[in-house]
Amino acid sequence: MTRIVAVDVHDVRFPTAASGDGSDAINRGDYSATYVELRTDGPHVGAGFAFTNGRGNEVTCAAVRALSDQVIGRTLIGLAEDPAGWARTLTADPQLRWLGPEKGVIAMAAGALINAVWDLRAKAAGVPLWQLLAEMSTDELVACVDFHHISDVLTPAEAREILDRGRLGMADRLAVLAADGFPAYTTSVGWLGYPDDKVRSLAREAYAQGWRAMKMKVGGDLDDDLRRARIIREVLGPHGWLMMDANQVWDVDEAIAAMRRLIEVDPYWIEEPTHPDDVLGHARIRRVINRLPGARCRVATGEVAANRVIFKQLLQAEAIGVMQVDACRVAGVNEVLAELLLAAKFRMPVCPHAGGVGLGELVQHLAIFDYLRVGAALDGRMIEYVDHLHEHFEDPVRVRGGHYLVPDQPGYSATMRPASIAEFAFPDGPAWR
Amino acid sequence: MTRIVAVDVHDVRFPTAASGDGSDAINRGDYSATYVELRTDGPHVGAGFAFTNGRGNEVTCAAVRALSDQVIGRTLIGLAEDPAGWARTLTADPQLRWLGPEKGVIAMAAGALINAVWDLRAKAAGVPLWQLLAEMSTDELVACVDFHHISDVLTPAEAREILDRGRLGMADRLAVLAADGFPAYTTSVGWLGYPDDKVRSLAREAYAQGWRAMKMKVGGDLDDDLRRARIIREVLGPHGWLMMDANQVWDVDEAIAAMRRLIEVDPYWIEEPTHPDDVLGHARIRRVINRLPGARCRVATGEVAANRVIFKQLLQAEAIGVMQVDACRVAGVNEVLAELLLAAKFRMPVCPHAGGVGLGELVQHLAIFDYLRVGAALDGRMIEYVDHLHEHFEDPVRVRGGHYLVPDQPGYSATMRPASIAEFAFPDGPAWR
Repeated sequence: MTRIVAVDVHDVRFPTAASGDGSDAINRGDYSATYVELRTDGPHVGAGFAFTNGRGNEVTCAAVRALSDQVIGRTLIGLAEDPAGWARTLTADPQLRWLGPEKGVIAMAAGALINAVWDLRAKAAGVPLWQLLAEMSTDELVACVDFHHISDVLTPAEAREILDRGRLGMADRLAVLAADGFPAYTTSVGWLGYPDDKVRSLAREAYAQGWRAMKMKVGGDLDDDLRRARIIREVLGPHGWLMMDANQVWDVDEAIAAMRRLIEVDPYWIEEPTHPDDVLGHARIRRVINRLPGARCRVATGEVAANRVIFKQLLQAEAIGVMQVDACRVAGVNEVLAELLLAAKFRMPVCPHAGGVGLGELVQHLAIFDYLRVGAALDGRMIEYVDHLHEHFEDPVRVRGGHYLVPDQPGYSATMRPASIAEFAFPDGPAWR
Repeated sequence: MTRIVAVDVHDVRFPTAASGDGSDAINRGDYSATYVELRTDGPHVGAGFAFTNGRGNEVTCAAVRALSDQVIGRTLIGLAEDPAGWARTLTADPQLRWLGPEKGVIAMAAGALINAVWDLRAKAAGVPLWQLLAEMSTDELVACVDFHHISDVLTPAEAREILDRGRLGMADRLAVLAADGFPAYTTSVGWLGYPDDKVRSLAREAYAQGWRAMKMKVGGDLDDDLRRARIIREVLGPHGWLMMDANQVWDVDEAIAAMRRLIEVDPYWIEEPTHPDDVLGHARIRRVINRLPGARCRVATGEVAANRVIFKQLLQAEAIGVMQVDACRVAGVNEVLAELLLAAKFRMPVCPHAGGVGLGELVQHLAIFDYLRVGAALDGRMIEYVDHLHEHFEDPVRVRGGHYLVPDQPGYSATMRPASIAEFAFPDGPAWR
């Protein structure tokens, strides 16, 4: 009976700001992790983390420490018995809930701990997390979901129906993944910090590697955005998928004006066209774009959507055509499971957000589980891929020909290499001294 | 030329959890403050704070420290030159913004610092904050507002029109306040932790003191809620205002079912009937309540609304009939000013949230300014009053006959007594040792 005996929190920061990698219309930082290790009296260590943008990583570290008492002393069996209940000890704590509620720092900290528990469960079971989830009974999965504040749109009975239906054909879908991997797109070609020549050569290189879906950052100067978009579209040809990401920089009317021009290059989606809390704003942008002649462009958002209540509304308001989930922004696997079920109810494709530190390592498990058991169709599903910082993980993502290979190591692929933790520990690691 | 030379952060916690004061359907805690002092090279100290519920107060303290560099070294003249711009150095910092964005811990920390700067400005001007704001030119006030992500609903030109119109009759409105004070309601009669007898005697006592508007907590057992509501209604008589506060505990359908019963006692509003992020949920609850026979009950929310973008949508979706703002939840006076202007555009009465630690001290300035210069009408405007913890402030609220008296000391009434800071410092103050 494995028991969690201690929670270690590491402030790990990679000095990425200087290179221009990761630069977009809003964010420029040193990609960082609030890295959590659950020490147990058994053979395994549970790993989880929150991704941050550098300064302030100590704030999420403090939030993890504030929540740690809810985990220390718990047994794996106890945690598995009422998974939604124990997740609520983190998300609905009567004192700490005030710091959100269910958003920002405190949600990210809850997510780091909850994900670490799932990593531990999967390691203890000797299987990758996607497999642990996909093979759970419908009742076990439903017991992971906090239906609080979403029951007007998704009931436990509806969730059960979705998950039961997801069992049909699962073996066939797994065979598809084993053969082809999971479709992906690359974001490594078009950061705002890159000059035209670099964009062109990176896009050509990516195309040669098999990538047929590429995402660029927009939201700087519109002429620059359009010029760089044309370069990528030229490389991709008319049938490739070109996605655009504005990282929240536009007001609603600015987004509409920008898309009237950018629509020229036939984008597949416009991501984060405005503030992530603005459900009604996204809905208006979507309605206008849908009326542009010849436009097939979808509205996408979700990488910083605060919680299941925001996703519920994005779906209710028909504000999006692609739903993006993040593994570390919300309160962990349990919250993401609620989000995947909401998406399935609305037949909305889910394309997880990756990049940052280790986000691809995590979301590959969620996307595979979603395809196997929840959404149960590919229909445009893709995982983001950014070629940064994978070398710091014990079980890094493997990408071939524009697809993620199915991870096969036990756990949630969240374990960071001890040498990396030591080297990039802030402020005392050698990299920062 | 006053310059800010240091930021002191104090973790101050009052042991309120044991008494049952402050207990509601969601929150039970030790009312606490992340208390900020801006040290200057001049005669004044700027005071500001974030209110929290006890555990986790160290997390908001860490967030304030992370933001402090944006304030240290700035001069008061420099801060007054581009007030929206410097507020954005806190709310739109390229690394720290990730921790929100514009919500939760990082917004509360920004609010503590921004409010401390306003306290300093008012002290330096030798006037209470409400007066400093009310006497500013329209251009100066508009320069305080970050229109980013709300410009689709409120333009600078519209804000200017509202604020120019607000100058008309301001002297008359000030005379009304000087004579009568600002209308208030009391929340001290009906916490969930109180037995019936205590509710009855507190309500009678409050009525004898002149209170004709009282708020009770609901969201526990519905029979209990109704029984306690009848007690307060009986004391108030048919013409008094009885407000109800569910503190987010209900799902949308639960809120509707509860209000079908609670409507019997003719509540003036139902506050936080569901999750604070659920704009569409509030809109649905409002539509249903409006159709109940004889119901005049309004939907109210906002005390934990994350930012101006959420308020924008609550107004757009016609989700509320009373808008509640908090002084410490969002990024300070500048953000609240945006919210007051949005409310004025929609002719929505604003009834600020108070209670906690020192919230009444702050919001009285905002409500008075709103009445004098922005909303420019009372039409149901009231400030919440809770009789806790005022003794710890240098310039505490003064309440007579159900009204707040107009504060007349320079500043934002945010300064805590040094003896209280020392006594309740966590974890080393005498109260916690």
